[in-house]
Amino acid sequence: MKKYLAEFLGTFWLVFGGCGSAIFASQIAAGDGGQLGILLVGVSLAFGLTVLTMAYAVGHISGGHFNPAVSFGLLAGGRFSGKELAPYIIAQCVGGIAAAGALCFISGGVGDGPGAFATNFYDSAVYFGKSYSMQQAFLTEFLLTMFFLIIIMGATDKWANGKFAGIAIGLGLTLIHLISIPITNTSVNPARSTSQAVFVGGQALAQLWLFWVAPIAGAIVGGLIYKFLLQRETAEA
Amino acid sequence: MKKYLAEFLGTFWLVFGGCGSAIFASQIAAGDGGQLGILLVGVSLAFGLTVLTMAYAVGHISGGHFNPAVSFGLLAGGRFSGKELAPYIIAQCVGGIAAAGALCFISGGVGDGPGAFATNFYDSAVYFGKSYSMQQAFLTEFLLTMFFLIIIMGATDKWANGKFAGIAIGLGLTLIHLISIPITNTSVNPARSTSQAVFVGGQALAQLWLFWVAPIAGAIVGGLIYKFLLQRETAEA
Amino acid sequence: MKKYLAEFLGTFWLVFGGCGSAIFASQIAAGDGGQLGILLVGVSLAFGLTVLTMAYAVGHISGGHFNPAVSFGLLAGGRFSGKELAPYIIAQCVGGIAAAGALCFISGGVGDGPGAFATNFYDSAVYFGKSYSMQQAFLTEFLLTMFFLIIIMGATDKWANGKFAGIAIGLGLTLIHLISIPITNTSVNPARSTSQAVFVGGQALAQLWLFWVAPIAGAIVGGLIYKFLLQRETAEA
Amino acid sequence: MKKYLAEFLGTFWLVFGGCGSAIFASQIAAGDGGQLGILLVGVSLAFGLTVLTMAYAVGHISGGHFNPAVSFGLLAGGRFSGKELAPYIIAQCVGGIAAAGALCFISGGVGDGPGAFATNFYDSAVYFGKSYSMQQAFLTEFLLTMFFLIIIMGATDKWANGKFAGIAIGLGLTLIHLISIPITNTSVNPARSTSQAVFVGGQALAQLWLFWVAPIAGAIVGGLIYKFLLQRETAEA
Repeated sequence: MKKYLAEFLGTFWLVFGGCGSAIFASQIAAGDGGQLGILLVGVSLAFGLTVLTMAYAVGHISGGHFNPAVSFGLLAGGRFSGKELAPYIIAQCVGGIAAAGALCFISGGVGDGPGAFATNFYDSAVYFGKSYSMQQAFLTEFLLTMFFLIIIMGATDKWANGKFAGIAIGLGLTLIHLISIPITNTSVNPARSTSQAVFVGGQALAQLWLFWVAPIAGAIVGGLIYKFLLQRETAEA
Repeated sequence: MKKYLAEFLGTFWLVFGGCGSAIFASQIAAGDGGQLGILLVGVSLAFGLTVLTMAYAVGHISGGHFNPAVSFGLLAGGRFSGKELAPYIIAQCVGGIAAAGALCFISGGVGDGPGAFATNFYDSAVYFGKSYSMQQAFLTEFLLTMFFLIIIMGATDKWANGKFAGIAIGLGLTLIHLISIPITNTSVNPARSTSQAVFVGGQALAQLWLFWVAPIAGAIVGGLIYKFLLQRETAEA
Repeated sequence: MKKYLAEFLGTFWLVFGGCGSAIFASQIAAGDGGQLGILLVGVSLAFGLTVLTMAYAVGHISGGHFNPAVSFGLLAGGRFSGKELAPYIIAQCVGGIAAAGALCFISGGVGDGPGAFATNFYDSAVYFGKSYSMQQAFLTEFLLTMFFLIIIMGATDKWANGKFAGIAIGLGLTLIHLISIPITNTSVNPARSTSQAVFVGGQALAQLWLFWVAPIAGAIVGGLIYKFLLQRETAEA
Repeated sequence: MKKYLAEFLGTFWLVFGGCGSAIFASQIAAGDGGQLGILLVGVSLAFGLTVLTMAYAVGHISGGHFNPAVSFGLLAGGRFSGKELAPYIIAQCVGGIAAAGALCFISGGVGDGPGAFATNFYDSAVYFGKSYSMQQAFLTEFLLTMFFLIIIMGATDKWANGKFAGIAIGLGLTLIHLISIPITNTSVNPARSTSQAVFVGGQALAQLWLFWVAPIAGAIVGGLIYKFLLQRETAEA
């Protein structure tokens, strides 16, 4: 049970901190003298730091997935047991939805339109007046989650530097957001997408399938690439 | 006595660096060609780095609390002795107030109005023309300090990666600021709130109670959650 | 073969993440209320984090060069075998070009003009209305790659702190971008320059020679400086 | 001789990277659609990363001072030998001046007026239309260098986490810049101040005395505080 509580808390923190920073602090007020917030670079940092902090806090309890795609990818990579997959994903989704509830109370509502309440999207011009198609969004989410799993598998490899994994993985998620917030608001995590979509509904719910399929597919491919093509049986130097 | 001096210096640094960066460097000048400062992302980074640096500098002397809520939370979590609670809190508050005095001299005054001199607030539209209620502010401070304690308890757990704790805890405080500066100017630390309020007075002093009660309550709950629900007696893997 | 796949993936990630963040996320929309992106500080962070993450993920497999200049510099410094130079450089260039292809599909085109698609340049006023000459660009790329190699050689020295090398080297690349994006869009990496230039052509291709010659020359000098002037035979303290 | 070369290179890198990022990349172009650079948060990051990277690269050779005030402070703290003080300071100043020469060639001139070419200043309204007096500047530089030495002494203490010192010290310098760029452009390092002042002359040279006296005085006090009030003879836990 400690494992499931750790996954619940970790995913709560990921959604509360990552989506919360986007909801509360990324804004820029219009006009002269407007006060700037944390911009997209701050949101990217926040998402990564939720994982970095929880990896060191409870990673030694549950492995620190906080993300159904990561659980699927580690299963494909031979690092996670299939019989724990369902309870992990349930704990992650419940944690994310609880965090979204807290965010909703604090922000006093969720707004609407693409990207509102930090929802993910495609085919919507949210940033810089530019829209990305379903295919472009799918490839982005697929590739980023694939590399996220390669980073996770590699940084926690027994031949690598396990103690540094929390830094590499957390800042890896920051990097992923630095690249792709303008494209999809960045998911790579079905629990994070679900938690926001269930509060906003509409387009966010209609497009939610992509933020389950693309990250999980990418994660499985990433786990397999590491396991079969990169992992070594013996240390070489 | 070395412990109390370490807590004095650490809290001085937290207030001088965190509040100082907000007071001196976060501004944006109005109009075309105005020079941008460090924005709220820089202030968030500054608060976190005060704790990261002092955790490595004097954490091995006093444990590196620099925050009455942390001392209460570690007491609840069974990591701190009750008979040191009072002198720790006194050292922290005196350190914070001394830093606020230095900031006051350097800035040449404290200004007034909500948020002036980096004071904490609720029910005040300081950022982005948006105001958060007492209830919303309380929940925010409670939850963030609760998670802060879970991070501290977990990252310093004997089964975890103790040497990395300074990074996880310091960047955890950065994350907390990335989320909540627009809501309350971020406290999670009664000494930091007190040091600024005593110089500004007025609303800052009238609202100070919340920045003692919510962080300490959250910290105690966080310490208890980790101790009773997450901490393990034996390593499992 | 694992080594070459690691170099392919690492350089793919460097180009996809570093150039991708510049292409998708650095923009600022004109006018009041425009949403700011990640700015050049975010792009700098992204480039560094690609190397930090892959250094921990696959550095234990291939050494984590992801850059022909680094391979040349480590050869000069006595840390890399000459017979692997050609396959490493091929893997790096192919990885970079594959990433540029993915970026091209996602962004829906490459644009044109100096700096388009994150290409490198000299003699072009891309940022802040200021242009830097070929000589100024050459010295910049030379010096930055020279120091990059000193950092790499030193941080992986047996007398140093090998496990921290991924942080020092990754954040070193962030630093290099913080300095020089306005000057050349920052190369210090011929594979990264080539991948973007082959898609854009024109000036980017015509100026590509400098982003092979200057980084490789700087890297060789940096490797030699460390090997002959700094490296010690015995630990002294 | 390796030590002096390490100090030369480290201080070259500190000035080239820290002052260079300010000179080339911090600007904001006026008007709608202007491209933002790295802001003061990027400059702060750059200064810190010069020290972080060189601490891991050559810190094991020379101790990684790169700053006359640090050498004085470590001497006061009992960690550095007086007979090396003069050659260290000479190597640092020569390294800084060489870097300023390279910056001058690349930028094509040094400009004039307070703060030009990243010079330090007091009594000058450079940022946000606000000016700080000599007394305010002195206290700022004194306190920041004092804490810088406490961080350095503590993080490299035998009871502390020596391998993490490069991170704590480097990011400590980032923090110091986040606080004080608007006040003095941040020195805490007489070699860095001297290198820029000799190229610009005028007010920068006339005010240079403060950026020797205040940092060195603060560093000595910081070294003494740690040695006599914080350092322990035995580990206690």
